[in-house]
Amino acid sequence: MKVAIMGYGTIGSGVAEVLRVNQDQLQKKVGEPVTLKYVLDIRDSIPEDADKLINDFSIIENDEEIKLVVETMGGIHPAYEFVKSCLEKGKHVVTSNKALVDAFGSKLIGIAKEHHCNFYFEASVGGGIPVIRTIYHNYAGENLTEITGIMNGTTNFILTNMREKGADFDEVLAEAQRLGYAERDPSSDIDGFDTSRKTAILLSMASGNRCRHEDIYTEGIRNISKLDFEYAKELGMTIKLLGSVQQVEDKYFAYVVPMVVPKSDPLFSVDGVFNGIKIVGNCLGTTMLYGMGAGKLPTASAVVSDIIAAVRHQDEFQGIGWSEKMLEIEPMGSNAFTYLLRVEGTCEEIKDDLKEFFLEDSELKPVILNGRTDEFAFITDVMFESDFLDNLKAFEEKTGRRIIHYIRTEKEEN
Amino acid sequence: MKVAIMGYGTIGSGVAEVLRVNQDQLQKKVGEPVTLKYVLDIRDSIPEDADKLINDFSIIENDEEIKLVVETMGGIHPAYEFVKSCLEKGKHVVTSNKALVDAFGSKLIGIAKEHHCNFYFEASVGGGIPVIRTIYHNYAGENLTEITGIMNGTTNFILTNMREKGADFDEVLAEAQRLGYAERDPSSDIDGFDTSRKTAILLSMASGNRCRHEDIYTEGIRNISKLDFEYAKELGMTIKLLGSVQQVEDKYFAYVVPMVVPKSDPLFSVDGVFNGIKIVGNCLGTTMLYGMGAGKLPTASAVVSDIIAAVRHQDEFQGIGWSEKMLEIEPMGSNAFTYLLRVEGTCEEIKDDLKEFFLEDSELKPVILNGRTDEFAFITDVMFESDFLDNLKAFEEKTGRRIIHYIRTEKEEN
Repeated sequence: MKVAIMGYGTIGSGVAEVLRVNQDQLQKKVGEPVTLKYVLDIRDSIPEDADKLINDFSIIENDEEIKLVVETMGGIHPAYEFVKSCLEKGKHVVTSNKALVDAFGSKLIGIAKEHHCNFYFEASVGGGIPVIRTIYHNYAGENLTEITGIMNGTTNFILTNMREKGADFDEVLAEAQRLGYAERDPSSDIDGFDTSRKTAILLSMASGNRCRHEDIYTEGIRNISKLDFEYAKELGMTIKLLGSVQQVEDKYFAYVVPMVVPKSDPLFSVDGVFNGIKIVGNCLGTTMLYGMGAGKLPTASAVVSDIIAAVRHQDEFQGIGWSEKMLEIEPMGSNAFTYLLRVEGTCEEIKDDLKEFFLEDSELKPVILNGRTDEFAFITDVMFESDFLDNLKAFEEKTGRRIIHYIRTEKEEN
Repeated sequence: MKVAIMGYGTIGSGVAEVLRVNQDQLQKKVGEPVTLKYVLDIRDSIPEDADKLINDFSIIENDEEIKLVVETMGGIHPAYEFVKSCLEKGKHVVTSNKALVDAFGSKLIGIAKEHHCNFYFEASVGGGIPVIRTIYHNYAGENLTEITGIMNGTTNFILTNMREKGADFDEVLAEAQRLGYAERDPSSDIDGFDTSRKTAILLSMASGNRCRHEDIYTEGIRNISKLDFEYAKELGMTIKLLGSVQQVEDKYFAYVVPMVVPKSDPLFSVDGVFNGIKIVGNCLGTTMLYGMGAGKLPTASAVVSDIIAAVRHQDEFQGIGWSEKMLEIEPMGSNAFTYLLRVEGTCEEIKDDLKEFFLEDSELKPVILNGRTDEFAFITDVMFESDFLDNLKAFEEKTGRRIIHYIRTEKEEN
């Protein structure tokens, strides 16, 4: 099969490299050579594959020999127009572009179906972690009740370092930028938008319907501090930025928030730039897929797994994806969490108030760091987020005590 | 599609349950109902699905309506004869029977190919962990340099408890038997044979050629003691029973042994009855798949994922499997490890000997537990196993000091 790569940045050049390095293995497994014919890029020269460089998309579009196009340009335009045009000509398209999949996934899947070719996007979530295909192949018969993941290496690197070094956010972010793990403008990572797009794709895969990342409640990690980690540590827990999707009967819940995670959760041990995606099924129980969620070669490897699928399904639409029907996500307020709550002062005089607003069922177990008297923390009962926010306000008004910070907390499994 | 289940034990009845509980989800995903028609069992009555119970295999064999047969009988005979006969009639077969896959996998895959149907075995390794299909779909383009797994829940439960409770092997085995996590005759688990069969299947998947578990060097966990764990803990490490497959150029290595595992390995945190399978690819880097490796419903869920594949590939042989060609595994002596070595006495008078036989490149860093003088431990340089065993003997002869125990050790990644 002859292929073209559109966009020769980190991922695109990585795909060319994987095709080159693993060509024998690839040919052995799919029964025919996979040959790179064109590289489309706006640049005039590229270090490798220079003989394949073109600047004009119409060459790819009009070359009937090209049966598969890899889209690694990033961004939505003109990626969308190029991909659409390839699919309409019956060329398979493989992408690593989560923004494109989030914005136009269902549309492009529909076009692929109409033209008996495939639109694949394994690399758009979790890099080398085989999550899209696992949901499609292995867990299609499961009622998936939860998918929760650490899906952004930059934020996980920052949080891991904050925990290990007892350092504050700004300090670790600066280091991550120095090491190249964080962008100069880190907003897309640390404000959770990258995770939110991936969460939207997983929700679409799990539900079979379309959802938009704009509809997913999203908080980043800018407000997580050294002290938050000290409390979490004291409780034997840690803090992770999680994208989560949950299904209860026919209702869907989804959010991206930093959460306090207990040791019993397999995501607890997913550290540094690694990603982990936990999948819970009604029969399956809990599984987790762990690996490099980003990076040139791991992501390129996922792109190549899609190329293999395209060769194996050359003449048929395989149907990995979801419908155009819009999914309704339940409002954030209807999620239930426990909360790690940091409160001003000491707990002595406000025990009854804490009980009234946050601890109907359980005893107050205050966590006090090194005998401090300016604040303490505790974990609330399970509460609906809307009730929690109401009670937070009512508590502050009644007691005059400020809530310094709260972080949603996973209940420890017994 | 109409299906039959052969063998209504734990897994077989679990498959019937998953088909019942998730039938709507299943039909939605594969586009047609999957209906259980027969249950073959030697018993005269079964608690559920009693109306489907038959005792005569020929009914399944001769019913043209049955397009798929689930084999959950266990054992090799008559499972092999039944499966063979079904495949020869063009019926897809799905099995959870690792002994069958290990002994006759390539033969049955060949028969399936000849009759344009499929022989699937996702449930034979790692229960609900999607390892077979991940190797086939996602990592087909990778040069897989290593697959190493904790693939037996019983031994992992025992080792986890030895570590956490500081208890000795016999004590924890008895508890595991009381809780139903270990069989009355636990040999297949604790002597490593179960892991060895799974390792053989993974090696066959990775290499594309046939191998037999009898050719894989296998040690169990009977000799692991409380003290071994104390040394491992002191080093910030733990002990796990690992099945491992490695490829270096065109040479294949495989073994099942208890190993000292550092914290940097994702398998370090796989505890209790959970399983974890680490896969390393030349481009992919390190990934790990984690989940319930056994148990009624997780294993049944994996069987159902194969049923889904069979419905999706009704009229074609998909080619998940390996050839009849026999793979040669390199001898155990040609593997290189570091070793945690427990030596009689104190290290003072034998420092030069230790250096001569075990520490060419690095300094001796003895680990001494609570000021003991009857023994100490240390970690050797990387050595070929054959050299190590020679040196062990030479060291004992020269110094008159006994080596109390050694455990192969994974090198800490930096």
